[in-house]
Amino acid sequence: MDERDIRDYQRMMQDDIRMQAYFQAIQKLCPGKVVCEVGLGLGPLSLMALNVGAERVYGIEVRPNVLELAQRVIRNHGYDEKRFVGFEGLSTCVELPERVDVILSETLDGVVFGENTALFLLDACERFLKPGGVIIPEGIASKVALANPVEFERQLEFWSEKLQQRYGLNYRDVATELNLHNQSIAVTPDELLSDWTHWHDVEFAKPETIAYPRPVELWPTRPGLARGFAVAFEATLAQGVHLRTFPSDPGTSWKQGFSPFRHPVECSVGDLIWLDVQIGSGEDTRVSVRPRVLHIDASRAPTFIADLQRSGASRSAEAEEGLESADPAEEKPPLPSS
Amino acid sequence: MDERDIRDYQRMMQDDIRMQAYFQAIQKLCPGKVVCEVGLGLGPLSLMALNVGAERVYGIEVRPNVLELAQRVIRNHGYDEKRFVGFEGLSTCVELPERVDVILSETLDGVVFGENTALFLLDACERFLKPGGVIIPEGIASKVALANPVEFERQLEFWSEKLQQRYGLNYRDVATELNLHNQSIAVTPDELLSDWTHWHDVEFAKPETIAYPRPVELWPTRPGLARGFAVAFEATLAQGVHLRTFPSDPGTSWKQGFSPFRHPVECSVGDLIWLDVQIGSGEDTRVSVRPRVLHIDASRAPTFIADLQRSGASRSAEAEEGLESADPAEEKPPLPSS
Repeated sequence: MDERDIRDYQRMMQDDIRMQAYFQAIQKLCPGKVVCEVGLGLGPLSLMALNVGAERVYGIEVRPNVLELAQRVIRNHGYDEKRFVGFEGLSTCVELPERVDVILSETLDGVVFGENTALFLLDACERFLKPGGVIIPEGIASKVALANPVEFERQLEFWSEKLQQRYGLNYRDVATELNLHNQSIAVTPDELLSDWTHWHDVEFAKPETIAYPRPVELWPTRPGLARGFAVAFEATLAQGVHLRTFPSDPGTSWKQGFSPFRHPVECSVGDLIWLDVQIGSGEDTRVSVRPRVLHIDASRAPTFIADLQRSGASRSAEAEEGLESADPAEEKPPLPSS
Repeated sequence: MDERDIRDYQRMMQDDIRMQAYFQAIQKLCPGKVVCEVGLGLGPLSLMALNVGAERVYGIEVRPNVLELAQRVIRNHGYDEKRFVGFEGLSTCVELPERVDVILSETLDGVVFGENTALFLLDACERFLKPGGVIIPEGIASKVALANPVEFERQLEFWSEKLQQRYGLNYRDVATELNLHNQSIAVTPDELLSDWTHWHDVEFAKPETIAYPRPVELWPTRPGLARGFAVAFEATLAQGVHLRTFPSDPGTSWKQGFSPFRHPVECSVGDLIWLDVQIGSGEDTRVSVRPRVLHIDASRAPTFIADLQRSGASRSAEAEEGLESADPAEEKPPLPSS
């Protein structure tokens, strides 16, 4: 681990809202139980489980040096290999010696799906969990909204304008690169251009809910440039224990998720922004979450929606075809074939 | 490159003091010249050289995806492969097609030696530079002082106390881990416990100056706990063009360097802190810079120094032997054998 890694763990473990919510859920669900943590990190959640009386904890972590440090810390708390067993690797490649009562995981990122959490927890539920076992978090409900966060705009400006003005350097390619990366960024209510719209409800113990999110229709509530969509979520860690990342909630280490559009979209009230995501494979546990955007102006939006409603299920098939970006040249709506 | 990498490059390229100083040196030394940049990064310095009329630039970068993006940016400025050629790898493994007039590099970190700059630039001067060629920076003069930076203390407190108080988690092992990592951290004058003391002068075109720094004697100017030593430097980029990182200078992206002691040292005025460093090998271009500290209290310090002065050169040999840390058990000064 380098200094940067330690600071990243510190940022997460300093987040008292996150830590308190997990602590509460662990106190409710882990005493006397056999637990498996998927994505151990430095092990604070597994340690909480042991401290509240979990019978035994299996901890799975893909980074060997992180696992080694976590194991050292856990041993120092007096837990021997009867109480804690570490496994190095991706959870999908690990076999546990027994099924467990509780699966525990904090592998959520700002855009919810970035850590490929759904895939890993679905597999863990299937292969590791006893019948009737529980999972922390039980489920996640996420919402999206059109956004133009100032912090992101400043980054773009730096690469595409400031360097040009100051030193005659044209770094627009890095601004373009930035548009390909999801961010954890603070998004304030006045940086939103639409209401928060329901995106995806997952319950990890119900495989049928884990399909990747369907497209959503976003209606600008004020005119302006949407540089991407913001994501916020409510994770249910246990009955009555929730973790929320909306701008109206106390700030967490996730801030808000922000997924930039390849090209910003100039929105008017009455327009429709039709948003789908592609989920790509990445290294280790990460996946890329890339938006596909279709901008339909106010005059054509009602027709488009009516057509979509008529054609029903064909909507997602359309999404697979041509809707690459909101590039003006590509804005022609692919009207559903009825 | 992930978002974290882009932000790191942004932090460096947003540092106008650094950029302006290099820009000045490049304007003075690069027009009409053949240049090689060691450690290209995203290429802003090579681009500056091309923009002020360098005949040709060779850019060496170890990270393939960074090189690829830099090459794309440079091509977009209209420089073809006659003006810019990129090489992937460590500079010590690269062969250039010709010797160059100017070697250009910004591979300095807060503790000066962390990027192994001396080794790489010495090799580059020997193998790449024409007789009479110049190097940017020409040289670096660094100083050290005993320090207890608040920001570092807060990090230690978080791992060793806060987590215990809030959640009953004992993470002292991470605090210990932190003590093994050099930091870029703001050190204010009131966080210093000694004067700045001359550490090391390097001129890269003079191999005889590049030996690793000799031990220094630091005398506390006020009592307190020294958690490590701060490092600041003045790099001479060209005649009259300097880049300084002392707390009294305008802040740069380096802030100050800080190298923690394995064990903090309680200092009194009149004590002597005898400081040496070990330079270890690391991955890629990084080396570990670890302090070795000997704490001699006020009553014994004058004798120790007198003995050192009598024994002269044997000092560095002593340093190789037993001075692992300022652990009280190891504080017995190894008196020079006369």
